[in-house]
Amino acid sequence: MKHIVLAKRPEGAPTDENFRLEDAPVPEPGEGEVLVKVKYMSLDPYMRGRMDDGPSYAAPVEVGSTMEGGAVGEVIASNDPKFQPGDHAFGMFGWATHGVQPARMLRKVNPDDAPIQTSLGVLGMPGFTAWAGMTAYSRMKEGETLVVGAATGPVGSMVGQLAKQAGLRVIGVAGGEEKCKMAVETFGFDACVDHRGKDARAMREALKNECPDGIDIYFENVGGPTLGGVIPLLNLHARVIVCGMIAWYSGESDETGSMPLQKLWRHALVKRLTIQGLLQTDHVSRFGDFLREVAPKVASGDIVYVEDVEEGLENAPEAFMGLLKGRNQGKLVVKVD
Amino acid sequence: MKHIVLAKRPEGAPTDENFRLEDAPVPEPGEGEVLVKVKYMSLDPYMRGRMDDGPSYAAPVEVGSTMEGGAVGEVIASNDPKFQPGDHAFGMFGWATHGVQPARMLRKVNPDDAPIQTSLGVLGMPGFTAWAGMTAYSRMKEGETLVVGAATGPVGSMVGQLAKQAGLRVIGVAGGEEKCKMAVETFGFDACVDHRGKDARAMREALKNECPDGIDIYFENVGGPTLGGVIPLLNLHARVIVCGMIAWYSGESDETGSMPLQKLWRHALVKRLTIQGLLQTDHVSRFGDFLREVAPKVASGDIVYVEDVEEGLENAPEAFMGLLKGRNQGKLVVKVD
Repeated sequence: MKHIVLAKRPEGAPTDENFRLEDAPVPEPGEGEVLVKVKYMSLDPYMRGRMDDGPSYAAPVEVGSTMEGGAVGEVIASNDPKFQPGDHAFGMFGWATHGVQPARMLRKVNPDDAPIQTSLGVLGMPGFTAWAGMTAYSRMKEGETLVVGAATGPVGSMVGQLAKQAGLRVIGVAGGEEKCKMAVETFGFDACVDHRGKDARAMREALKNECPDGIDIYFENVGGPTLGGVIPLLNLHARVIVCGMIAWYSGESDETGSMPLQKLWRHALVKRLTIQGLLQTDHVSRFGDFLREVAPKVASGDIVYVEDVEEGLENAPEAFMGLLKGRNQGKLVVKVD
Repeated sequence: MKHIVLAKRPEGAPTDENFRLEDAPVPEPGEGEVLVKVKYMSLDPYMRGRMDDGPSYAAPVEVGSTMEGGAVGEVIASNDPKFQPGDHAFGMFGWATHGVQPARMLRKVNPDDAPIQTSLGVLGMPGFTAWAGMTAYSRMKEGETLVVGAATGPVGSMVGQLAKQAGLRVIGVAGGEEKCKMAVETFGFDACVDHRGKDARAMREALKNECPDGIDIYFENVGGPTLGGVIPLLNLHARVIVCGMIAWYSGESDETGSMPLQKLWRHALVKRLTIQGLLQTDHVSRFGDFLREVAPKVASGDIVYVEDVEEGLENAPEAFMGLLKGRNQGKLVVKVD
């Protein structure tokens, strides 16, 4: 088997030297464990956080260890009666061609329901993150205005589609004309602002044009000038769901990142904002509800998704670096098999 | 009648030159209006915000107009059947010896239930603010730890008592030994940290000693180094209720006020914080519930309150300037009559 390890911790944006492709023996499944041959692995922005030391919501990847991540593949050996060879399963196998996990850590995936790689995106962690955040925290109401960054990504596109179906005005933010076009034409957003080359002031002006009644819900995936443009446009009782801040994951700062806390505090008080941190693991007990509600809509085409497929495990680092720079359009997966 | 007007807008902390005592004819109540002779008026930190121009949750006081505020007094003339001369009423009469308001803007106060000035404090806006914020947003649970600043003030002391009665560990923050003693001995807090002479780092150390299990709820009245000390101690899923920030009302900044937004955003995400702005006017429909629940506890002594009474309308500016500097101990009222 092959796997990619964290070769050294990055300073700033990751580069090739932070990753190393290694060979290893295929592991043996122990008691209650399952061996899976990976078909698709997921690449997600949160993985950048795992590369750093220091406190976060999960332990960092150790230097020399396999890069973390979700993947889906075919069971080739099982010491648990719930899985048989030939079954498909999702689990945290990391950046690797094979993986062993306890059966209780795996989710069975039925290839007849949907392409198996949707378990990494629209019907996996990113789609669930969007659904969990919107159902738990958005208090969305028909006629309100929602803004979401990384609009064509698997979280942003789900947020926007759920909000559109609830009757909201939905404005995306994305990098480049092509993605903005996709947000509107493929995902049905009302409009999409291209953040490229815009500072916080320019973002504010562009968003103001698209949000004549202000912003009621901001689903935060990005930080940076997008957030800086959003804050002054937030309405009374607006909700800000903080799910990610990809613009700041590699330690960059900017005008918005250095905005004085005092200023935000004043906005929070005067507008009685709700600012809510979101992590999908807090909501796992509702994963079944999510699948029951959303999987039929994906099957019927009422919820659409876009995938960017890279080929080959060895290309994962390059694809991941591109993801952090906004190079992908939809959900980024690597075809490993 | 006499009233105090905003003579000019302050730059920084207000001084004598920002206020002017003026004579005026006693106003005549119009159709549906009530004339009240004020007995007690309230002084509250929020009034500092009204002295500034610029957007806030309420319009600023105009230069040359009466300073705004709540007051309670005796009805001396009424053109509304709901009020008779001799009745007592609370209303927004401002800093003045007399005031006219439409009857529908007044709340009748029964002097047999409690001293009438409690309608300005423990049974008025400040007490209600605390109760509304705690009932709507705190999600407090037995065994959790709450921190509240301005601990002996009418908001902080109510917050702390409500939390103690719900079985929380309650740590106050106040300026000076005497107030800290009062927080513990009079209001029953578990401990109280003196913020005087402490920067954010020192506040963090002092709070850490008193909060061995971290902080689950921070009821924000003060901003400044107290907030700076609290943030790193907030637990997973902690709630921050932003009710006021007296340390920053006169435009001061400090290390915490200039903390980069990026840093707070990371705390919000990693710890899945809830940060919620609070203004009591959003909750007025529950004012009756508040009185039904809290007034009997005040009558029975299960909820206690402390008042600082200044004598004479002409001393209101001096008392207000002292309030902003933390000179009062409990709820500050001016005996006007």
